[in-house]
Amino acid sequence: MRAEVGLMLGPSLGINYSPRSPPNAKVKERSVIHDCVSQFLNETEREREMLYIIGLGLGDEQDITLRGLEAVKKCDKVYVEAYTSLLSFGLSTHALEKLYGKPITVADREMVEEKADAILSHSLSSDVAFLVVGDPFGATTHTDLVVRAKKLGVNVKVVHNASVMNAIGICGLQLYRYGETISIPFFTQSWRPYSFYDKILNNRSLALHTLCLLDIRVKEPSLESLCRGRKQYEPPRYMTINTAIEQLLEVEQMRGGKAYNEDTCCVGLARLGSDDQKIVAGTMRQLRVVDFGAPLHCLVIVGKENMLELVVRKLDATRGICARAPIHDTVLHLSFMSVPCLMMLKYLTSNLLLNAKELIHVI
Amino acid sequence: MRAEVGLMLGPSLGINYSPRSPPNAKVKERSVIHDCVSQFLNETEREREMLYIIGLGLGDEQDITLRGLEAVKKCDKVYVEAYTSLLSFGLSTHALEKLYGKPITVADREMVEEKADAILSHSLSSDVAFLVVGDPFGATTHTDLVVRAKKLGVNVKVVHNASVMNAIGICGLQLYRYGETISIPFFTQSWRPYSFYDKILNNRSLALHTLCLLDIRVKEPSLESLCRGRKQYEPPRYMTINTAIEQLLEVEQMRGGKAYNEDTCCVGLARLGSDDQKIVAGTMRQLRVVDFGAPLHCLVIVGKENMLELVVRKLDATRGICARAPIHDTVLHLSFMSVPCLMMLKYLTSNLLLNAKELIHVI
Repeated sequence: MRAEVGLMLGPSLGINYSPRSPPNAKVKERSVIHDCVSQFLNETEREREMLYIIGLGLGDEQDITLRGLEAVKKCDKVYVEAYTSLLSFGLSTHALEKLYGKPITVADREMVEEKADAILSHSLSSDVAFLVVGDPFGATTHTDLVVRAKKLGVNVKVVHNASVMNAIGICGLQLYRYGETISIPFFTQSWRPYSFYDKILNNRSLALHTLCLLDIRVKEPSLESLCRGRKQYEPPRYMTINTAIEQLLEVEQMRGGKAYNEDTCCVGLARLGSDDQKIVAGTMRQLRVVDFGAPLHCLVIVGKENMLELVVRKLDATRGICARAPIHDTVLHLSFMSVPCLMMLKYLTSNLLLNAKELIHVI
Repeated sequence: MRAEVGLMLGPSLGINYSPRSPPNAKVKERSVIHDCVSQFLNETEREREMLYIIGLGLGDEQDITLRGLEAVKKCDKVYVEAYTSLLSFGLSTHALEKLYGKPITVADREMVEEKADAILSHSLSSDVAFLVVGDPFGATTHTDLVVRAKKLGVNVKVVHNASVMNAIGICGLQLYRYGETISIPFFTQSWRPYSFYDKILNNRSLALHTLCLLDIRVKEPSLESLCRGRKQYEPPRYMTINTAIEQLLEVEQMRGGKAYNEDTCCVGLARLGSDDQKIVAGTMRQLRVVDFGAPLHCLVIVGKENMLELVVRKLDATRGICARAPIHDTVLHLSFMSVPCLMMLKYLTSNLLLNAKELIHVI
């Protein structure tokens, strides 16, 4: 079956004509629209070559879907974008080439931005695959490439996969309870944009979690080389959770809106979806010094702390222990993988620090 | 490598002790924590049986990842949850069984809620796969199952996949620009919960898009049968976009907060990720009467209309055409699949209704 995607242009096939349109304009419009629809039907009736935009998922080459693999196998030309994503994130072209049994061209930022038409022209005469880490329309959209493809008359098919935008659910905080996602760029001496701060403030005021995507700088031409007119690239840089927290705290100090502070609960996630992923919950103060290892990192600022944290705070006040243990809903949810968290819970309950009624609230 | 997931419990291995803790409590805590850590290390050192929670993606059996398929192949027992998701959504157990070469047990709501321990006990002695449409922690989380598994000492591994929460990106509206996701339940004569309204109001006031997940009622016991003490089930019901819009407009009329109205731009999506998906952009008034076909449906309420819509409104005012054409950023983004939209743009430009400068803003 053919996917149907359209725009409601009104009850008829085209535009709803305003009564103010002159009659000859109406006739002209109708004729143009008629042509468009005919062209649309003709285009979809015949089988055309296809540009497949295929999500690779998060981890390694085994995260491609069967649907994606089947599409790659029938393509004459395979590109993998290294523009916004990261081959070193568990993926190597060698492993991909071995799996697919064909050569792969790495399309870096320059190629995607400047030579998109060259890529697309292949797909006029044969099937082409364009591979994207994560989901094609996840954290970064490839709308521009698709719009260009369409202009050239290339048919496009999308194969979805996991991206950070949904896989973040593994930290246990419901995806329903996230507000607007933010990006934190590397600060420089002269460029310290704070625009993400208001978004966190909004999210926190609505008790929503904030997913923070951290800056990636790959194949950035150095300022010096640009001045000399000869492109040379800075070494790749990936923002760590530690740097992100430093910058966040700096912005809070500058803005003073009390969106968060050093005691705000967060979850840091490194190499999400990989076998060696690392997920740690704690306050900003605590996570600031954790070594999360290799990129990619991302950070969740927890929106609202739940019953469990309240219970622990109560315990803190009345019994004087667990003063700084950042126990909140993340703990509970993370507990399935985090034995120390479960044990902590068990310890609390076995020592009757939580009574049965409180425990029902918590679990 | 082993994935690391944890909770920062302070600079030492356990709890940060408050200076108010009595000394004997400290000693007891240390001993408990030491036991916990030892147990944790012992558990992870030996290879244990595994409960794999595997996302199936959105479309059909071909949407499983290679990593997911490999896991299923080594499992002795395979469950597929039909609790929150939908086998009729392109998936049949027959097709799955054929692909996996082994029988599959359908775990409905009752089984997951009431017999989870029976499912989990299998995974104490052999590898078990629990399949979930979409991503395991996407629109619905399976945290409860995972917490129970952990309590029984079962190791858990998650295989991610696409879910509505990231695949919605295909409608062209950036995932960055979504606010809190809402669920719209079926209204009954006596139960008309309006709590989602304030969330839409918040999102719209921040110019954010709202993803609306629509109610699914599968294997719901009828009230009558519950009274008789003998369970009988209502026929399955899936909310259509049409019903969702009816209910949304009813709530707006009751609440009157001007969060949206019949002219608010939306995108309706049916069978997202399937070959026969249907995506239509238009006003609530327009989408209310579109036949989107079989489930699942979802709806996006567009947060902010962009330059293109402003241009068209200007045209509307000055030239008296295109009065009701809902052209906004969705159009532009949807255009890659929607030839009528592209043609509409082409028509506008070829007739010089947009001049070159305006077009730069638009494209």
